[in-house]
Amino acid sequence: MVKKQEHEITLTNFRVEDSFWSYFQNLVKDVVIPYQEQILNDELPDVEKSHAIENFRIAAGKSDGEYYGMVFQDSDLAKWLEAVAYSLTLGPNPELEQRADQVIELIGQAQQEDGYLNTYFTVKEPEHRWQNLHDCHELYCAGHMIEAAVAWYEATGKRNFLDIMCRMADHIDNRFGKGKVRGIPGHEEIELALLRLYRATGEERYLRLSQYFIDERGTAPDYFEEEEKSRDWKFWSQDASDKNYAQNYAPVREQDHATGHSVRAMYLYTAMADLAGEIHDEELWQACLRLFDSTVSRQMYLTGGIGSSVHGEAFTTDYDLPNDTIYAETCASIGLVFFARRMLELQPDRKFSDVMERALYNGVLSGMQHDGKRFFYVNPLEVIPGLSGVQPEYRHVIPKRPKWYACACCPPNVSRLLTSLSAYAWGEAIGQENTTDTVYSHLYIGGTFTSKAGGGVTIRTETGYPWNGGVAYTVTPDAPGADFTLAVRIPGWCKDFLVSLNGQVLDAQTLEIRQGYLYLNRSWNSGDQLKLSFDMPVVRMYANPLVRENAGCVALMRGPLVYCIEQQDNGPDLQTIRILKDSVITAEETSDPVLGDYTAVKFTGLRLTCDGSLYSDVPPKAEEAVFRAVPYYLWGNREEGGMRVWIPEA
Amino acid sequence: MVKKQEHEITLTNFRVEDSFWSYFQNLVKDVVIPYQEQILNDELPDVEKSHAIENFRIAAGKSDGEYYGMVFQDSDLAKWLEAVAYSLTLGPNPELEQRADQVIELIGQAQQEDGYLNTYFTVKEPEHRWQNLHDCHELYCAGHMIEAAVAWYEATGKRNFLDIMCRMADHIDNRFGKGKVRGIPGHEEIELALLRLYRATGEERYLRLSQYFIDERGTAPDYFEEEEKSRDWKFWSQDASDKNYAQNYAPVREQDHATGHSVRAMYLYTAMADLAGEIHDEELWQACLRLFDSTVSRQMYLTGGIGSSVHGEAFTTDYDLPNDTIYAETCASIGLVFFARRMLELQPDRKFSDVMERALYNGVLSGMQHDGKRFFYVNPLEVIPGLSGVQPEYRHVIPKRPKWYACACCPPNVSRLLTSLSAYAWGEAIGQENTTDTVYSHLYIGGTFTSKAGGGVTIRTETGYPWNGGVAYTVTPDAPGADFTLAVRIPGWCKDFLVSLNGQVLDAQTLEIRQGYLYLNRSWNSGDQLKLSFDMPVVRMYANPLVRENAGCVALMRGPLVYCIEQQDNGPDLQTIRILKDSVITAEETSDPVLGDYTAVKFTGLRLTCDGSLYSDVPPKAEEAVFRAVPYYLWGNREEGGMRVWIPEA
Repeated sequence: MVKKQEHEITLTNFRVEDSFWSYFQNLVKDVVIPYQEQILNDELPDVEKSHAIENFRIAAGKSDGEYYGMVFQDSDLAKWLEAVAYSLTLGPNPELEQRADQVIELIGQAQQEDGYLNTYFTVKEPEHRWQNLHDCHELYCAGHMIEAAVAWYEATGKRNFLDIMCRMADHIDNRFGKGKVRGIPGHEEIELALLRLYRATGEERYLRLSQYFIDERGTAPDYFEEEEKSRDWKFWSQDASDKNYAQNYAPVREQDHATGHSVRAMYLYTAMADLAGEIHDEELWQACLRLFDSTVSRQMYLTGGIGSSVHGEAFTTDYDLPNDTIYAETCASIGLVFFARRMLELQPDRKFSDVMERALYNGVLSGMQHDGKRFFYVNPLEVIPGLSGVQPEYRHVIPKRPKWYACACCPPNVSRLLTSLSAYAWGEAIGQENTTDTVYSHLYIGGTFTSKAGGGVTIRTETGYPWNGGVAYTVTPDAPGADFTLAVRIPGWCKDFLVSLNGQVLDAQTLEIRQGYLYLNRSWNSGDQLKLSFDMPVVRMYANPLVRENAGCVALMRGPLVYCIEQQDNGPDLQTIRILKDSVITAEETSDPVLGDYTAVKFTGLRLTCDGSLYSDVPPKAEEAVFRAVPYYLWGNREEGGMRVWIPEA
Repeated sequence: MVKKQEHEITLTNFRVEDSFWSYFQNLVKDVVIPYQEQILNDELPDVEKSHAIENFRIAAGKSDGEYYGMVFQDSDLAKWLEAVAYSLTLGPNPELEQRADQVIELIGQAQQEDGYLNTYFTVKEPEHRWQNLHDCHELYCAGHMIEAAVAWYEATGKRNFLDIMCRMADHIDNRFGKGKVRGIPGHEEIELALLRLYRATGEERYLRLSQYFIDERGTAPDYFEEEEKSRDWKFWSQDASDKNYAQNYAPVREQDHATGHSVRAMYLYTAMADLAGEIHDEELWQACLRLFDSTVSRQMYLTGGIGSSVHGEAFTTDYDLPNDTIYAETCASIGLVFFARRMLELQPDRKFSDVMERALYNGVLSGMQHDGKRFFYVNPLEVIPGLSGVQPEYRHVIPKRPKWYACACCPPNVSRLLTSLSAYAWGEAIGQENTTDTVYSHLYIGGTFTSKAGGGVTIRTETGYPWNGGVAYTVTPDAPGADFTLAVRIPGWCKDFLVSLNGQVLDAQTLEIRQGYLYLNRSWNSGDQLKLSFDMPVVRMYANPLVRENAGCVALMRGPLVYCIEQQDNGPDLQTIRILKDSVITAEETSDPVLGDYTAVKFTGLRLTCDGSLYSDVPPKAEEAVFRAVPYYLWGNREEGGMRVWIPEA
């Protein structure tokens, strides 16, 4: 029977002090959160208007303005508040906390007598509340508000926000469910939020309500078609009968392929995995395994991006992974991190943590400019000057990060993920029957982890990851001779590694490695040090030959990082570059005022030219040259130009 | 000063009796024209409704029905009538001629008192005549009707249709021009039609009116923007200010890149070239040379297809030639044939005739099913099962020819081109100062050509082209010792050839070859025979490395024919096939009940498979196999499946 192997890690268990990630956490704390606060307050010129806080003022009767923004504009504020809550666990900021409390007070003032909370419907169409779950995203906004409230409660201990959102959750619970009104959300999110609320409050009705929304999806008659028939108005012109788009083609336990809007899919699957662990639902777990496999084994970009098409921001078909007309929304990669993390709680297996790492270091980080002030919604693997962002098919593939978006789901989503990174690095299984306590190191991030394992232990991690493969864990148990297992992921990208304990290299033959985790059970004493050294060459990656778009191409990876070639380093017309089967490939530490410290990759290859004819029976001429690749997450930080990840092999 | 080098060839000068083309001409004559007649009369079930003839009945007051169809539905009937006219030059058909005369009578009855002829505006919106030239295509329909009337006059000698269309042309001439109402057509066609009408009637005002429409395009203020401002209604939601779309970005003599809707562009450029020859306009000729180069050297598919994007059915940017989301409308390739033919009249250069041949044998022929009963509008170079015709980006790329279209421009366009093929095969320059008479063999098509060159001559051509490279010309002058030059194209695809005269191989060093034409001037006697033998191996074609979509790929050609691999011959997942740099490639004559007699190509290569993982640092496994390619024009004639032209080279 499936059950959670791990406890949930609270953020304060692990303090990040890392040469790679601390930069991003501080950036979010010091730059991005204040920047987004200004935007949410409409204080920045030359930026897509937010109006999110003003909408709450209007709903609270404190302003006379007009509602502005998406029907789900509330969720931008929610995700910002969630990020603020996490940021307070990184370091106190009483002024920010006070301002956030004021916003929370305003949210409370915008709440209706009956607990209902949604500024769009309160201000604009009160008569249409709860009538269009397919398009209008009231449950989605509620979910994000609940997540923010739980985060606020966990970070500050204050119940102010949690109480507001419990009233809203109760309002929803009073309305929807078996024997009450039928309903499921168009955009999933409420399901995973209610599970978090359940754990924060201990109130089982939130678990049951989450389960209701999950169980009801895909059952006959189709809820969205029924809903559309029951009302005489539409919000968008979306097709309510598209069952793939809405992950609605079968009851969730019978689903076997990831479909439709990829962010929604990830949020649903995350909740499904979480619920499976909570209620020990083997059938649901098996569905999660199938859906994870469908996502990552047939529909995922090398960068951990998902969603091949702008139409519906959606999955298409297996192995259809265009690099240029791609969607790969930042939020979808974040959702994939959520999903992988929940799967990992049920089964410590690197097939989950490898994907989590791949998305984090590539498709998520690429969503934010290195200075924290611009954001990508779409994360292409190829940018073509003159087409990307310009031609109709490519209009969504913007070659330079905009400052903000009318639909600004991605930027605050990056903020909340990066500030809560602690929850993704470690896992612990403590006090379980017939097993010793185990702590899991899922990601290699420098910092200090404290756990109750073996009666209490502090583990200090030092690493130069992802730039080198050295990781050192120094163990300090509360009492000498603590008996617990330290389980460390051996990443899938690594072919060769050394493990040493207190300076002594361990015999590879004797290592206990299961599902990609090295298990080291012993009696730990203060100062015990486990060192890992992962060999980290630049590796050529090949796509499955079924992927049309990458036929004949290779991509370069080093450790968890995908690399790309950019026009700034290699001149225009990147399609004319060829990597040779025997190219010399080197890695080179470098530093740059814009890109920071990073390791570049150089390779010898060919640049093709021809006599100018469009077609010829004479092969193009080839000139040897040296080309330079940079980590994918850094692309688009310099002046605008072409970029590509997959390089034809000659 | 530019001027026409060639006279226009009337269709009866050359009687086609060819092992390749006669099949298609007879197919159009015996199958396609009757089939299309039934459709135009709404006599076929399960076919997209035409209503074209019924619209004329309604406009003529002979029926009470409702107008149905596109605003330019009249043009379908016009193109059919044009094809009927040409078909009568292939062989008499009194019944068909009589039925066509009845249709022409009906057209006359639908004409308004003032000469105006357009069933849409006559029936539906008489108050909106001539107010929306951008969208409503009255001038376009008039142009097709004029072409049909000229063809009818030339084929039958009867003026019935010509008189009707002269009245319409006069109506247009009375309205538009300098000092009259300003106007240019949204969809070019009237320009080239008026030039044909000018030559058929000798009336110079039609030449001047054509010149007015050509000269006015691209001048300030922008006509379409002015027009849009002047009325309070729109027909479609098209953007009248898109100057690229409408070939309106500069006066035509200053234009240097082919833009916008590719059919419209071709029709404009055809008229520009024709006009340049008529009025000896060097500046216009130079513009035509630039636009031809822009089209064929940077924006043309290997098949002679043009128009990379469904959005606007249009050109995009140089070297952007996606094989799968392509447009490459059949009509656009036909337009390219027209354009190349007109250029050839001004300058006998194989750069024009090679393109004409390429489009004819590939991108035009592919528009029609081999049985003549289904038609492609879009001619892709790659078809992907599950995506093509299904996913939003690919919905226009239908993998199987439909029977008819709501917008049915292409099928009758194929019909009129194939029935008038005689006009494209030969050229003649007779009675010009300081040069001997010259006849040009542009295309290798079996049949009998009669010319006034050298006082009169008959040239009989026998050839197995395109399946083999042998061509024999047997000359029979009206009187012995006729002095004229026989100029024969040496095709650009040919690297090696033999020429013999009366059985004697001519020394390659002594041959006079200019711009790809072999000029043979002599005194010809009866029975003189010129034989050409073109070496016709299967050739690997490489795209310019700037073409992203073909990076690392080759395409196979043999003679003028582009080849493709189809799923029916090679199994699914064509993207997993690799051709080797040293693959053995053979040609094989074959016969098939569906595809007819043709030469297939076989090559050894690899099929890649892998362990099932989506990405791996292990290259895919490769198994040797033999693959089979068929001529591109035959693709999609068997059961539905994948197809691709460009094959990755391993």
